[in-house]
Amino acid sequence: MNTFTNFIPTKLVFGNGCLEQLSSLPLPNTLSKALIVISAGTAMRKFGYLARVKALLSQRGISSVVYDKTLANPVKEHVMEAAAVCRAQSCDLIVGLGGGSSIDSAKSIALMACNDGDYWDYIHGGTGKGMTPTGGALPLIAIPTTAGTGTELDPWTVITHNEEKIGYGVPELFPIVAIVDPELMLSVPPVLTAYQGFDAFFHASEGYIANIASPISEGYSLKSIELLAKSLPTAVKDGSNIAARADVALASSIAGMVESTSSCTSEHSLEHAMSAYFPALPHGAGLIAISLAYFGAFADTCPEKFMKMAEVMTGEKSTSPEDFLNALAKLQKDCGVGNIALSDYGITAADLPRFVSNARNTMAGLFTVDPRDLSDDEVLNIYKSSFK
Amino acid sequence: MNTFTNFIPTKLVFGNGCLEQLSSLPLPNTLSKALIVISAGTAMRKFGYLARVKALLSQRGISSVVYDKTLANPVKEHVMEAAAVCRAQSCDLIVGLGGGSSIDSAKSIALMACNDGDYWDYIHGGTGKGMTPTGGALPLIAIPTTAGTGTELDPWTVITHNEEKIGYGVPELFPIVAIVDPELMLSVPPVLTAYQGFDAFFHASEGYIANIASPISEGYSLKSIELLAKSLPTAVKDGSNIAARADVALASSIAGMVESTSSCTSEHSLEHAMSAYFPALPHGAGLIAISLAYFGAFADTCPEKFMKMAEVMTGEKSTSPEDFLNALAKLQKDCGVGNIALSDYGITAADLPRFVSNARNTMAGLFTVDPRDLSDDEVLNIYKSSFK
Repeated sequence: MNTFTNFIPTKLVFGNGCLEQLSSLPLPNTLSKALIVISAGTAMRKFGYLARVKALLSQRGISSVVYDKTLANPVKEHVMEAAAVCRAQSCDLIVGLGGGSSIDSAKSIALMACNDGDYWDYIHGGTGKGMTPTGGALPLIAIPTTAGTGTELDPWTVITHNEEKIGYGVPELFPIVAIVDPELMLSVPPVLTAYQGFDAFFHASEGYIANIASPISEGYSLKSIELLAKSLPTAVKDGSNIAARADVALASSIAGMVESTSSCTSEHSLEHAMSAYFPALPHGAGLIAISLAYFGAFADTCPEKFMKMAEVMTGEKSTSPEDFLNALAKLQKDCGVGNIALSDYGITAADLPRFVSNARNTMAGLFTVDPRDLSDDEVLNIYKSSFK
Repeated sequence: MNTFTNFIPTKLVFGNGCLEQLSSLPLPNTLSKALIVISAGTAMRKFGYLARVKALLSQRGISSVVYDKTLANPVKEHVMEAAAVCRAQSCDLIVGLGGGSSIDSAKSIALMACNDGDYWDYIHGGTGKGMTPTGGALPLIAIPTTAGTGTELDPWTVITHNEEKIGYGVPELFPIVAIVDPELMLSVPPVLTAYQGFDAFFHASEGYIANIASPISEGYSLKSIELLAKSLPTAVKDGSNIAARADVALASSIAGMVESTSSCTSEHSLEHAMSAYFPALPHGAGLIAISLAYFGAFADTCPEKFMKMAEVMTGEKSTSPEDFLNALAKLQKDCGVGNIALSDYGITAADLPRFVSNARNTMAGLFTVDPRDLSDDEVLNIYKSSFK
């Protein structure tokens, strides 16, 4: 057994209706004013979530201001603008409410509210200066309204600046509390439920085969995979099924715990390369499109892990790593996403070689935790055999 | 799915030789002087653990003083004495090094170094005054040298005052870091390895059947049970088998995570009642002695959970809750503790009725998380059928 570290300081509050606990759960008692970070869309107001969060904070004496410009792919300019609002308004708490983009933005804003200079000063990679932030971060409460990123239980945030879309994380960016209320997810439409659910699935399954997986992270992975196999198809087909929504929400949060204790592998590098050039391609759809070829490349590398994943997906004893690939194909079909054509998003066969170099250049680190080294030829073949 | 909370802010550093990380792992950078809490025995000096810990702290500029009076059942007087040392010496860090008694003491000392009055002012139950400590606690590093209590990953401490042996916990008492190095456990003798290992087993299995178990705590339970079933017999028979020691150490820490996210059930109440009157009875031995009758009482209450535990223990599909009881009996036999006679510790049949009332009176809370209510008659029957 290798040496490993396990550290997730975030308090998870989970369950139907648990948003109400925001008015009373223990927090540092000096808090007086929150910046609530939401997306530029209308959902948080339309569904009444923003009003509820403001009222619940108010009940405990915390006033709030709202930053509502966050884009689906959040940008550095907005991080800096919101951090300036935070300082001007003397906010001492950040609340990220919405999908992964809102919570990721909230993390980066929490950092820049306490550290001078530009956000890119602290970024590693690209034109980032790689400086160490010494000012800490404001306490952050994460309230996801989608089930997929798991960012509420990890210290990671992805922000874009010019053409650089770069992940970043320090321990201070773990939310102090994650309030995961499946009732807030009832309104997510079927196809997004599927794409986001598969994002969680790959956080869990990549983290499971990663060479830095620990016995504890493996347990998180298997539980997340089991819950998704059991309930994602139902959540897609019947979005009002709260039991299925709860299973998927929990699976996503637990997959966030995998992100905190293991790592995504290069499947995420391969996908980011595609959606960097073709932003209309949803992240989850891109992952699904390459997943069978990607995992197929490792079936003989760690067959026991494949069989274990198959067993929690099917409830039956597995005798071959192919069982996992079959279960994965079936899950995609059952969720109505078994036939994603990359060409539908404008991708052509001629684009595939540049994806290979982009994946290597922008997210090289994830290749180092793969179960074995992939050659460029193999990566190209994964793209080629996934392309239609 | 019920609403639940999951919160374990302790950073676990696990692995053979990981004690060395004490010299460099991230800690609040203001720390300058540690109080190292060890037992009154000779082990920590004899095996060189104390000298190593002092040297590793010194390498990072933290000087240390030692408190070495901790008893196997730690007492309040020592907590107060050590807290006074802590204040007089301006210690800003507590290190608990040794078995559960040293780490539990370290927690209580960390509390009383920051709060006025008497430790029993803050205790709930018995003659405790139930006051709320408002001063926080000193940061604590836990370094276990036995595998059983899991206290390094939970906020609980058990201290005795007069005849009151009472558990206590607040979130501030989670260690900031738990360094779990199986190499420090190579010297634990076989019978203690078995008793302590079964203490961990029952933390995991009681927490699994507890009515407050969550999907996350259930995952911890099953992993801990699986590791113990796999490796405790080997660790007992061949204490130098470091792979088996590592499995058992990890199982114990994960069972501590169960303690933090679920709860022991009344089996622990029943055992504490016995060892309260007969202190020579080791906690683990007492649990083992009553375990088959105790779990047998719930076999028809939650048969699916029994079968799941059986499956991770045997690796085979289970079709009956009896499979768990059989696997438990076999594990005890394989560890050489399958035939514990309570009469060997001076207990007579006439003692059994007072155990019933003591269990109800001193640890009533654990009965409320049982899978179903046990009557006094049933509790008495558990004692009677376990007695020999």
